[in-house]
Amino acid sequence: MNDCLFCKIVEGSIPSTVVAETERVLAFEDINPAAPTHVLVIPKDHVADSAADVTPERGDIIAEIIGVAQGIAHGRGLDEGWRLVTNVGPRAGQTVFHLHFHLMGGWDHVPPL
Amino acid sequence: MNDCLFCKIVEGSIPSTVVAETERVLAFEDINPAAPTHVLVIPKDHVADSAADVTPERGDIIAEIIGVAQGIAHGRGLDEGWRLVTNVGPRAGQTVFHLHFHLMGGWDHVPPL
Repeated sequence: MNDCLFCKIVEGSIPSTVVAETERVLAFEDINPAAPTHVLVIPKDHVADSAADVTPERGDIIAEIIGVAQGIAHGRGLDEGWRLVTNVGPRAGQTVFHLHFHLMGGWDHVPPL
Repeated sequence: MNDCLFCKIVEGSIPSTVVAETERVLAFEDINPAAPTHVLVIPKDHVADSAADVTPERGDIIAEIIGVAQGIAHGRGLDEGWRLVTNVGPRAGQTVFHLHFHLMGGWDHVPPL
């Protein structure tokens, strides 16, 4: 875990712009935003490298991640349109292997899938 | 619920190409695929219109949806790259208001977010 960028963000040794936080979940601005709102929502614990190794007992924290995303989206006035994306593996564009969800919204057009 | 397209797919009154199924989750081919693999994974029960109204107690079924997606992705040889997307609201492109996750993969390039 020591080399995990997102674990370092959680522990504070790498800075981030925190958007929201619960005991188990952290949300911070993506440093390379691909949409007007582009926030990463992650479990603080390194419970999985990606969605490929999320186990059934992790449902609680996944629901908590979704809840944090709901709050951010609503707070930013995005009720009419936001998206959660999680990438698995390099061919999908995953670059940090700590489970994370991209919360995106605020487009001026309906984005393609 | 009577007018919900995905509820009708679950009950079988509208046909679909089923890819995988558990007691609580159904996966079927998207009829308008945006990637070589494009499968919709949904809870059979209409537990939420979208991720915006997923409540904390739904974690179990969200984890089950992810588990079904894992199995499909692995079975199709997509371990190096797949993605889950859920859209909330018309400005994100949501057209059916029954919670669903797009499982996408098989691109010949790394797709943009």
